[in-house]
Amino acid sequence: MSRRKIAVVITARPSYSRVKTVLQAIKEHPSLELQLIVAASALLDRYGSAINYMEKDGFEVAARVFNVLEGENLTAAAKTTGIGILELSTVFDNLKPDVVVTVADRFETMATAISASYMNIPLAHIQGGEVTGNIDEKVRHAITKLADYHFVASESAAKRVIQLGEDPASVFNTGCPSIDIAQQVKNRKGLAFDPYEKYGGVGSKPALDNGYLVVMQHPVTTEYQDSRKHIEATLRAVQQLNLPTLWFWPNVDAGADGTSSGIRSYRERYEMENVHFFKNMEGDDFLNLLDQSLCLIGNSSVGIRECSFMGIPVVNIGSRQNRRDRGSNVLDVDYDENEIAQAVQRTIASGNRTPSSVYGGGDAGKKIADLLTDLPLKFHKTITY
Amino acid sequence: MSRRKIAVVITARPSYSRVKTVLQAIKEHPSLELQLIVAASALLDRYGSAINYMEKDGFEVAARVFNVLEGENLTAAAKTTGIGILELSTVFDNLKPDVVVTVADRFETMATAISASYMNIPLAHIQGGEVTGNIDEKVRHAITKLADYHFVASESAAKRVIQLGEDPASVFNTGCPSIDIAQQVKNRKGLAFDPYEKYGGVGSKPALDNGYLVVMQHPVTTEYQDSRKHIEATLRAVQQLNLPTLWFWPNVDAGADGTSSGIRSYRERYEMENVHFFKNMEGDDFLNLLDQSLCLIGNSSVGIRECSFMGIPVVNIGSRQNRRDRGSNVLDVDYDENEIAQAVQRTIASGNRTPSSVYGGGDAGKKIADLLTDLPLKFHKTITY
Amino acid sequence: MSRRKIAVVITARPSYSRVKTVLQAIKEHPSLELQLIVAASALLDRYGSAINYMEKDGFEVAARVFNVLEGENLTAAAKTTGIGILELSTVFDNLKPDVVVTVADRFETMATAISASYMNIPLAHIQGGEVTGNIDEKVRHAITKLADYHFVASESAAKRVIQLGEDPASVFNTGCPSIDIAQQVKNRKGLAFDPYEKYGGVGSKPALDNGYLVVMQHPVTTEYQDSRKHIEATLRAVQQLNLPTLWFWPNVDAGADGTSSGIRSYRERYEMENVHFFKNMEGDDFLNLLDQSLCLIGNSSVGIRECSFMGIPVVNIGSRQNRRDRGSNVLDVDYDENEIAQAVQRTIASGNRTPSSVYGGGDAGKKIADLLTDLPLKFHKTITY
Amino acid sequence: MSRRKIAVVITARPSYSRVKTVLQAIKEHPSLELQLIVAASALLDRYGSAINYMEKDGFEVAARVFNVLEGENLTAAAKTTGIGILELSTVFDNLKPDVVVTVADRFETMATAISASYMNIPLAHIQGGEVTGNIDEKVRHAITKLADYHFVASESAAKRVIQLGEDPASVFNTGCPSIDIAQQVKNRKGLAFDPYEKYGGVGSKPALDNGYLVVMQHPVTTEYQDSRKHIEATLRAVQQLNLPTLWFWPNVDAGADGTSSGIRSYRERYEMENVHFFKNMEGDDFLNLLDQSLCLIGNSSVGIRECSFMGIPVVNIGSRQNRRDRGSNVLDVDYDENEIAQAVQRTIASGNRTPSSVYGGGDAGKKIADLLTDLPLKFHKTITY
Repeated sequence: MSRRKIAVVITARPSYSRVKTVLQAIKEHPSLELQLIVAASALLDRYGSAINYMEKDGFEVAARVFNVLEGENLTAAAKTTGIGILELSTVFDNLKPDVVVTVADRFETMATAISASYMNIPLAHIQGGEVTGNIDEKVRHAITKLADYHFVASESAAKRVIQLGEDPASVFNTGCPSIDIAQQVKNRKGLAFDPYEKYGGVGSKPALDNGYLVVMQHPVTTEYQDSRKHIEATLRAVQQLNLPTLWFWPNVDAGADGTSSGIRSYRERYEMENVHFFKNMEGDDFLNLLDQSLCLIGNSSVGIRECSFMGIPVVNIGSRQNRRDRGSNVLDVDYDENEIAQAVQRTIASGNRTPSSVYGGGDAGKKIADLLTDLPLKFHKTITY
Repeated sequence: MSRRKIAVVITARPSYSRVKTVLQAIKEHPSLELQLIVAASALLDRYGSAINYMEKDGFEVAARVFNVLEGENLTAAAKTTGIGILELSTVFDNLKPDVVVTVADRFETMATAISASYMNIPLAHIQGGEVTGNIDEKVRHAITKLADYHFVASESAAKRVIQLGEDPASVFNTGCPSIDIAQQVKNRKGLAFDPYEKYGGVGSKPALDNGYLVVMQHPVTTEYQDSRKHIEATLRAVQQLNLPTLWFWPNVDAGADGTSSGIRSYRERYEMENVHFFKNMEGDDFLNLLDQSLCLIGNSSVGIRECSFMGIPVVNIGSRQNRRDRGSNVLDVDYDENEIAQAVQRTIASGNRTPSSVYGGGDAGKKIADLLTDLPLKFHKTITY
Repeated sequence: MSRRKIAVVITARPSYSRVKTVLQAIKEHPSLELQLIVAASALLDRYGSAINYMEKDGFEVAARVFNVLEGENLTAAAKTTGIGILELSTVFDNLKPDVVVTVADRFETMATAISASYMNIPLAHIQGGEVTGNIDEKVRHAITKLADYHFVASESAAKRVIQLGEDPASVFNTGCPSIDIAQQVKNRKGLAFDPYEKYGGVGSKPALDNGYLVVMQHPVTTEYQDSRKHIEATLRAVQQLNLPTLWFWPNVDAGADGTSSGIRSYRERYEMENVHFFKNMEGDDFLNLLDQSLCLIGNSSVGIRECSFMGIPVVNIGSRQNRRDRGSNVLDVDYDENEIAQAVQRTIASGNRTPSSVYGGGDAGKKIADLLTDLPLKFHKTITY
Repeated sequence: MSRRKIAVVITARPSYSRVKTVLQAIKEHPSLELQLIVAASALLDRYGSAINYMEKDGFEVAARVFNVLEGENLTAAAKTTGIGILELSTVFDNLKPDVVVTVADRFETMATAISASYMNIPLAHIQGGEVTGNIDEKVRHAITKLADYHFVASESAAKRVIQLGEDPASVFNTGCPSIDIAQQVKNRKGLAFDPYEKYGGVGSKPALDNGYLVVMQHPVTTEYQDSRKHIEATLRAVQQLNLPTLWFWPNVDAGADGTSSGIRSYRERYEMENVHFFKNMEGDDFLNLLDQSLCLIGNSSVGIRECSFMGIPVVNIGSRQNRRDRGSNVLDVDYDENEIAQAVQRTIASGNRTPSSVYGGGDAGKKIADLLTDLPLKFHKTITY
């Protein structure tokens, strides 16, 4: 019997980290054939060339889709999605997958969802049903309405997808595949690598032995104008805390300019003696780094997801993760220098590192591969009410 | 004070008929400026050049968007949508509308929804919240999740949009604007024009004085392979009934080939002595024609919408209108020659022509224009649960 | 040793007819692998679905490229070319041809030339170096400047390409491959098929036994506005001649509307008792039909090319074939009813059917395949002066 | 009488510098209206945001066209051109220029040429007829074959365009507009600004009082693989010379990665004590900097063009400027460390700074504007032989 062909489209570095164990489980499954399609910023140097990591991890790339239109403005984001549809529909025509899998809620993933659903290819969506309160949310729930299968990360996400009119028989709470890796990393003792040596980066190189902070803050698309003001509050808070800090550059997004140029400009004006900047890091190294850190600062979903599972203190800034499930490790604050600094000091002082299983138990990849093997193929659905 | 700029994107002839009174009301409103954007099949000869009717009706066209990629297959439908995004994002950049309005659920309307929402332009959707059970439904509900305002056509549609997690304050049951025209037409006595003379067409020209049937049957996208079989059942039923019949060609759609070639092939093989074929007809002439007919046969939404309001008997074939609100005028049948023929005979015999107000009271256009004037502008939303 | 992969891109029915023997010779060559790419109107029903003939002729299609943007205006022609580049570059990426072959001078062939040359794939051009005096000429000579090898059809074309600054070592007068088929057809006695039965079409069915005319007239792109006036002169001339006439619809082109609607409108106003209209015909049937005809009327390149080789009288209208090589069989006339009619009468009366070898000896396909086998691969060139 | 609308499409920073005086002359001409269209890398931060300089110089931008597809590989270059056609055809539709002007030979300028010529808009080409021996040359001469008017920079370019079959009446040797600026700058005494202060950049800041070198070396597209090796020869030569050096980063181009990463990698491995790196500089500052320098090293066309006019010594590396006209100021060398270093020492020692008028007399902008005013409008042409 021929194996089912499962096309997974990865458009960005963090999406790869998130579903790496799914890719692994599909690749190893005797009844499945993985068709890995790498697109958008996942192909580009400037955004960390996720494709290099995929190939190093032993995945074969079935198709590359260059669709990022330069401009870093909202019109370019729309056009990038349009080009993505033009290109992905050709790729699907060539690869003839039995199922297409799309991940999460980045704007350009809509191209995957539209191409597959318009071509009558069953569409599976990983990580639907969550809330955040930005443009991602429009995208995420619209993809839910285009998708035929839903592999969600938490109980509340499952409920939300069902309430969106999806057939409960098509909704599966598999847990989040990012937790699978967190589980592996959590068992390590200490920092397994020297981040400065392995990942380069710029800025000073503070000693990490007595604890350090990690910062990762992305622009929030619909608040384009404010990106720069937001990042400056964080920059001043970190300056005020004056602890060894490892800072990660943001992903591409309309608005990246505001955040990135805010950082660049601040660095030119002020000495940041305790801060080192990285462009990117392999997923498990990053989790190991977080696991050994005092606290994560920013608005990355890693904070509420992997960090909750691993019990790492998080100071979560602004609206980006609003209303997402989280463990007791997360302190929510506004874009305010003092609020940020005080929350960091408070959480470090408390010493609380209690883990949570709200995002699953570390076996999401395997669960999803098994479902993809057995699910009846369909691309026709109707709202349940 | 400057008037709000309202961009309405029309991509097909039936969409124009549906929202003509909305366009009129926006155009005439002292606080609004209409930006009419004509795209896709609405520009093309083969699909009845809706744009000619718009201009004849006195509307000025602000932009034309050619985005139909020839091929009439599913891949071309996806690519048409991708090209639509590329083109519409430029148009929105140039016109800088305050609100973009998109209509209903055709596949290519997704391009309007994505371009507007990705560019942070408030998006209003006319006619969301309905059910049908085909690809249109994926599109319709996905657009609901991208839209900021919802002008729905019935109470059950309003409930459904709210259940989809939309803020009730953004959902308005205005009734369906197509009813506005039906209301005007309903007052006429008899057929106000000679259809053969005014619209040409091909085939025999049966006398219409003693009653006639009207047929309009579109392909159902997700059942591409079956389009031809479906249309043949209807062709045989009409042959069997042997009554004067006026038949309308289907719109473009992936699958149009099956339906159209089915009709062409049947005509080559059999004499259809009582049947005349039209390519298209102005909206109010068409309603007048229906109003004077014995019965409408097919799967057009006109059957459950305008015909319900006007009390015209309808034999509705197959799944295309499944679960939509309808009056007691509609008889639902399968793709089966005998079932179709018998339903037609039964409904004609009954003489029942009771009207229904399930799709509103004939003032939707005005209601929508007033709402567009007063609604607070926003492009940021979150799911309500 | 691995065979050279030769990608040939066919974008229209007449281009297929022209290079069919080249495709055959490549396919049969032991050192070559044919990658047949079918694009644009060659895929579409409305333009005669050339792809069906290719498959019936035993060619395997390596890729299909839908790139015709509907609209039949000049902007759509430009955009069709842009989409062609987007799509063909992906196809070349996948197929990795050693050489790309493009044919003649239709506007959309520029997409082939640009994709190949920008991707550093050696580009061969069939039928460069000719003159006509319309937009085709801009395209044709621009492609010459992008191409690395030139397979030209006549001695004067070879001289022209060399004068354009191409290295004489890259210019080969192979003769025109369309002549290869003309050679085969020329040996047949009488009409080998019943055109009405085999090709359907519309209009009256005049008897063909006592001689008949053939008409094929295409719009001339840069004279868009005049297309309709031009075709009407021909229609009136044919009416005046009142001989049995077989008329072929024009190809797609910006301007097709003027020509096509001119024909349609004329037919509605006048009886054309002696005229039958065809949409398309297989290449060798068409040549057989011409070979048995009294005269070809119009502006098709078949008139000066195959008809010269076969010695068929031709009345060539207007500027489309200006300055192309031709035999003594061709009478050139203006867009003028009387001039056309008189030239037809004169050429029929003369009985002159002298053949010419200006376009080669009937072995172009084989010559081109041999050259493609042996030519050194290169994509780098410089002007010779 | 209404003014002629002249659309000029600028796609890169160096193209802007080159035709700035043309833009100025069109803008100031009473019979012309300038429609400045900014596209491709001219809009992007990474390539020096030429658009900012245009606006600072007082030009109003009529349309912005984002068409750079990220990827920096050959396929992306092709697709960038395809997207350019899609976008520019819309822009031309909106602006309805009487003439479109395109500049030089960058790959993406083909999009301008195709859109204009396919839409029957008269096309003027600045700087055709030159030779270099890379992909630019295919592009340049192909554009000549699409263009209706030719404003060339030298007598030998004029001859070449005519030999390409263009009507001599459409070919005008206006001189190169870049010379217009060189003329103004040449009159200044000394360096009019502090380059470190005004343009930032990275690296050491050597004193410039006792003379300095300038380096500008671009990758050569068709030798993609060798870009890195080429730049390393130059880096080592500069290291060997050990003179104060101001180095300019290359433009975007397929291959930019090889050159840029070569520079980056070299800087990480070696101290470059006497070298400062700039990303970009305003055109006249750059010329002033060159005018005061000991020598220009690299393969920029500035070396053979402006520097010839100004009499500045140039060491021109490799094939990029092959066969272009040049003055006696230019020494041609291979990609060889020692050859480069010795040529620099020799030319500095000689003290020869003789100017040349091979590229015109400094009034090209005005000449071109006058021609655009008076030329008969046409978009129809034929080869002259």
